[in-house]
Amino acid sequence: MINKLVDKIKKTGAPIVVGLDPMLKYVPSHIQNRAFEEYGETLEGAADAIFEYNKGIVDAVYDLVPAVKPQIAMYEQFGIPGLMAFKRTVDYCKGKGLIVIGDIKRGDIGSTSEAYAVGHLGRVAVGSKEYYGFDEDFATVNPYLGSDGINPFIKVCKEEKKGIFVLVKTSNPSSGEFQDRLISDAGNKPLYEIVGEQVDKWAAECMGDTYSYVGAVVGATYPEMGKVLRKVMPKSFILVPGYGAQGGKGKDLVHFFNEDGLGAIINSSRGIIAAYQNEKYASYGEESYADASRAAVLDMKKDIEEALGCALC
Amino acid sequence: MINKLVDKIKKTGAPIVVGLDPMLKYVPSHIQNRAFEEYGETLEGAADAIFEYNKGIVDAVYDLVPAVKPQIAMYEQFGIPGLMAFKRTVDYCKGKGLIVIGDIKRGDIGSTSEAYAVGHLGRVAVGSKEYYGFDEDFATVNPYLGSDGINPFIKVCKEEKKGIFVLVKTSNPSSGEFQDRLISDAGNKPLYEIVGEQVDKWAAECMGDTYSYVGAVVGATYPEMGKVLRKVMPKSFILVPGYGAQGGKGKDLVHFFNEDGLGAIINSSRGIIAAYQNEKYASYGEESYADASRAAVLDMKKDIEEALGCALC
Repeated sequence: MINKLVDKIKKTGAPIVVGLDPMLKYVPSHIQNRAFEEYGETLEGAADAIFEYNKGIVDAVYDLVPAVKPQIAMYEQFGIPGLMAFKRTVDYCKGKGLIVIGDIKRGDIGSTSEAYAVGHLGRVAVGSKEYYGFDEDFATVNPYLGSDGINPFIKVCKEEKKGIFVLVKTSNPSSGEFQDRLISDAGNKPLYEIVGEQVDKWAAECMGDTYSYVGAVVGATYPEMGKVLRKVMPKSFILVPGYGAQGGKGKDLVHFFNEDGLGAIINSSRGIIAAYQNEKYASYGEESYADASRAAVLDMKKDIEEALGCALC
Repeated sequence: MINKLVDKIKKTGAPIVVGLDPMLKYVPSHIQNRAFEEYGETLEGAADAIFEYNKGIVDAVYDLVPAVKPQIAMYEQFGIPGLMAFKRTVDYCKGKGLIVIGDIKRGDIGSTSEAYAVGHLGRVAVGSKEYYGFDEDFATVNPYLGSDGINPFIKVCKEEKKGIFVLVKTSNPSSGEFQDRLISDAGNKPLYEIVGEQVDKWAAECMGDTYSYVGAVVGATYPEMGKVLRKVMPKSFILVPGYGAQGGKGKDLVHFFNEDGLGAIINSSRGIIAAYQNEKYASYGEESYADASRAAVLDMKKDIEEALGCALC
């Protein structure tokens, strides 16, 4: 799947992932009204609205980008109907040929982590049969519990040729509270670098043709740390959140790429999916929200091309 | 809800939480067969089997313990039907008067963490209505992303009078890989202690009558660290996994309690729910698996009483 990701980035010339993190306040009123007319103001109504909203965006951008990243929390908040909309979104995107990165940030230990890995990337056995649960292509994973939490994912990744992105340095303002602490028994390197070094070891176990099935998450909001981490984990793709709405800019992204012009994929969520609510794209209007999202993807692609000196175009 | 937990521990004399982490290999064949006859060897069949298995255990132990802790990964591996069994389990246990700790180990940032908090502990707005998604009483939360990940949970805890347990030092063998690293800008304290100090700050914001709505997870397998962390977080209940199957023993537990005989709740999962597969309780047989679980709870209660010098009995 990492080989497919590399291929699709080369084909589209866009190292971009669209974050499908729908909030009801982003969903245009005509879609909400239609869903509520059919299902009432219920969890089922909310779930239907966010799926239809996603579908419009995916139809408008699937030819431009290699991947989408649905954030499961935004679905899980609507309980079982919300998670059904998550699964419908995963399936719909895969049907459109998109790679699906499940932003699930799961992490536990031993058989429990294996259950997450099996549920999201692999197959679960039921008697003599096997079933895929959510069946994403990649998943994000939290490293706080150490190798006991990650190895079960690596096992499933090897079986299924799928991948993970391990949280290393997250894009949020308080990410330094623990991630930036200096480790005295490692030459005063910050924790995120120690985690990065471990990601590099995990990555070595699970290589695709040029990159590993084990990638990392590093926020666009910390470009200097990205520069260091790029070198610490040369074989890992870096999934970069924090571009756009969170403050990361095109010029900040250069450090996250390798010299081959690859090795990073930049996420934008709100900046794309709610583009029509941004003054810049307001002229599209609510009804044409998906066209606004397409315009935002094209602008983002241009911003990255300019920053990278057109390495991919 | 923390007040209710304290009350129920005093009433039952058992600072014990039963971990409802069903794996199909634990489920007696008569339950599996009945479910597969009705639903086939499908995800629905697996989900029905694990719910019925849980129900038997809950019916057998609900009068002995204050709380249960379903591990959502074990349900999530069966996709949507599995998560429906999780929700049925939460509801069934609450109907029996048990406190439900959702072992979900979620953690993200800002509005995303809020979505998890709302989905598991709070209410989500849909138009003019509000709905509970999963509606557990407590949830476990991963701290790697810092305060941006925890504060949204604290906000919902205050609104709903519910609680969280923040992962501090986990019970698994590799938990030290990152959690034990020494922090040079904090007098060479290990990271788990820094996280513990932060838990104590979060806890102060959200107090019940005697304990905080913000608790911590510290593994029974690390009693010396538990001793330190008990003092670092005096207002926080400690949820202690790792007793029994993972190697933690009664005598190791003393350090996790405060002098009031409270402040800790010990989890056992496999040791209770799959007791009938343990040689010690094998005479119960598969059909009477729930009676074996009841016997295991009573033995665990006795083990803890002996270790604590009967502070609660």
